[in-house]
Amino acid sequence: MGRNAIVGQSGGPTSVINASLAGVLQACQMRGADTVYGMVHGIAGLLEENVIDLGAKIGSSLEIELLKRTPSSYLGSCRYKLPKATDKPEVYEKLFKILEKLDIGYFFYIGGNDSMDTIMQLSDYAAQIGSDIRFMGVPKTIDNDLMCTDHTPGYGSAAKYVAMVMKEIVRDATVYGTKYVTIVEIMGRNAGWLTAAAALARGEDCEGVNLICMPEIPFHVDRFLTKVETMQKESSSVVIAVSEGVKLADGRYVCELADDVHAVDSFGHKSLTGTARFLSNTVARNMDTKTRSIELSTLQRCAAHMTSRTDITEAYQVGGAAAKAAFEGHTGMMVALKRISNDPYQCTTELVDVHKVANFEKKVPLDWINDYRTDMKPEFLRYARPLIQAELTPVYIEGLPRHIYMR
Amino acid sequence: MGRNAIVGQSGGPTSVINASLAGVLQACQMRGADTVYGMVHGIAGLLEENVIDLGAKIGSSLEIELLKRTPSSYLGSCRYKLPKATDKPEVYEKLFKILEKLDIGYFFYIGGNDSMDTIMQLSDYAAQIGSDIRFMGVPKTIDNDLMCTDHTPGYGSAAKYVAMVMKEIVRDATVYGTKYVTIVEIMGRNAGWLTAAAALARGEDCEGVNLICMPEIPFHVDRFLTKVETMQKESSSVVIAVSEGVKLADGRYVCELADDVHAVDSFGHKSLTGTARFLSNTVARNMDTKTRSIELSTLQRCAAHMTSRTDITEAYQVGGAAAKAAFEGHTGMMVALKRISNDPYQCTTELVDVHKVANFEKKVPLDWINDYRTDMKPEFLRYARPLIQAELTPVYIEGLPRHIYMR
Repeated sequence: MGRNAIVGQSGGPTSVINASLAGVLQACQMRGADTVYGMVHGIAGLLEENVIDLGAKIGSSLEIELLKRTPSSYLGSCRYKLPKATDKPEVYEKLFKILEKLDIGYFFYIGGNDSMDTIMQLSDYAAQIGSDIRFMGVPKTIDNDLMCTDHTPGYGSAAKYVAMVMKEIVRDATVYGTKYVTIVEIMGRNAGWLTAAAALARGEDCEGVNLICMPEIPFHVDRFLTKVETMQKESSSVVIAVSEGVKLADGRYVCELADDVHAVDSFGHKSLTGTARFLSNTVARNMDTKTRSIELSTLQRCAAHMTSRTDITEAYQVGGAAAKAAFEGHTGMMVALKRISNDPYQCTTELVDVHKVANFEKKVPLDWINDYRTDMKPEFLRYARPLIQAELTPVYIEGLPRHIYMR
Repeated sequence: MGRNAIVGQSGGPTSVINASLAGVLQACQMRGADTVYGMVHGIAGLLEENVIDLGAKIGSSLEIELLKRTPSSYLGSCRYKLPKATDKPEVYEKLFKILEKLDIGYFFYIGGNDSMDTIMQLSDYAAQIGSDIRFMGVPKTIDNDLMCTDHTPGYGSAAKYVAMVMKEIVRDATVYGTKYVTIVEIMGRNAGWLTAAAALARGEDCEGVNLICMPEIPFHVDRFLTKVETMQKESSSVVIAVSEGVKLADGRYVCELADDVHAVDSFGHKSLTGTARFLSNTVARNMDTKTRSIELSTLQRCAAHMTSRTDITEAYQVGGAAAKAAFEGHTGMMVALKRISNDPYQCTTELVDVHKVANFEKKVPLDWINDYRTDMKPEFLRYARPLIQAELTPVYIEGLPRHIYMR
């Protein structure tokens, strides 16, 4: 059994993934790990032995606090897909040789579906060769699409950002009192969790968004135009939240209707962009109104200046819980969040078999969407509202939030 | 001399224009105005007698605080261009009849270049017909392009937002360690003040942006590509800040090189959008790198959750100073900000003849841009840094910043 721990970050960045890194680091140190290594650019970096002594880089409690407030992945990330051990055993042999050389006993990977696949493959291989290295998954994704967990760290902060920005956009869009359709594109290729968060904007001080379009509901361009036209009779400014991944009934992405070229990444994911622009152009061509499209783009996943303190705390906790579990002998598991009570909101962690998580996607329940398919029901609001509560004040230096980065 | 005051907001929204509204309202009340009216949708609304009793709507000190934290224009805005009095005297006759009916003695208009034109036309007409109504301009624009004032309220907060978001984008863009060119489009059609603020991102905790392109410097697509290629040899992630209004040497906007249709508004301004997208596509076609374009869009002008307290305070002050000046007998003037000292930063207000402001535009001095035309010199940083200092904490209710809006 090795005496050191190693941790990596994978997949798309979030504004709280570094809080999980802090949680893993501190819990491993507390439980007696000699050295806590960090993989630079995830498993792809590890394969090139690109590792750092994380504990030496992040030594002080001030650095831990800055790490919690720094967006993106401190260690860097990758989108490397581990091949199957049966297909390419040499990759696994190489990896385990590197882990042995580093005297690793505990391996942590912070990420989403694809990262949980990595943990699954590695823990399965370890069992097969009789390695006692413990492999733990730490959930993270703004998409909130992981199975077996009430929600994922990263979602609460991104949801808070979306709700807040929608409030600001609604105010901005009403300013001229003229006919105006604003279409806001939000991340989410197959699940509409983050787009649904736009529903949180409505309240005593905001009219809210008029229409929410998610991948869970097949998109019909004609029905969409009819809805928008009807809505604009009620209020001249119509604000629409749309997932980048809304799809037609035949399965094609709406953004594929535009003329842009679409690339495919190493996981086979199509690059989705231009959904809002396409819809905004379509509205402009068919209706007598001004239009604007806004892509929240990467801003929604790296807005560390405006995180949910609930989310940051939970991100830190799942990191710590993963370390605890590994040191207590668990492997091949992911730490999940389990909601114990909603009012008052209480949440704890539990362990789930990573096989039940890897490569699955959790969609928004259809019965949380209203009958007109325009808005979220109160069930969703009750689910999401606790996750955006409270703030973590940035450390401001000379007027700007202070980060920490690896040199 | 009428006993009431009236105030309007015009042009594009900012996140601090309502702080100026609060300043006008409270100063007028303190100086004994009977009623402080608000024009709904600016001068266009006034022409339809669409006014409200502003003091009755915003009665409590809590409402004043919420108003300071609400983005966009509480009263609504317009882009109505007042015709010349010689061309359409009937418009002026109608306006002054309405003002007389409302018993107005003091008229305030919060806005940019075009709004100062309105104040100029109205005060000139008043002088001509012997009206004693006092007309005062209150500056506001994120563009910072007004003459005779050190800077404009609205700029500091938008600059802070740009600098902060660029820091977050720089972190996000380095995450994979792969070749990546991110092009961020920032508002500013003729002046690059706001884009220049991207230079504030660089510091102990951030590599900063690699290239800043502003309308002041003629844009050459070929030279741009060469620069980006050279920069990517130094660092795989290249982040570029570009003004929506960058122009070729022949005066055409760069975004006109794209295929999109471009509309023209009632001031004859072309709709500029797609500059970053065009450049990002051009880089993708010519270089072996991933690219991404991000438009900060309206987010940069309505980010009330992240304002500069310096800016909010000054926005409130110029509103108050305008009321003071009007009650003391001034007319046809704009309140300007005058920097007394830079270290420590001290700023006061003064009055300038609105004829010197209306319809002019202040550009970024060329000697504040470095010789390579890639970055800002320290002179700019010394100018801009004080304007982004300190924060105004939002009033959070259930996890979201609280606003106030007119029903």
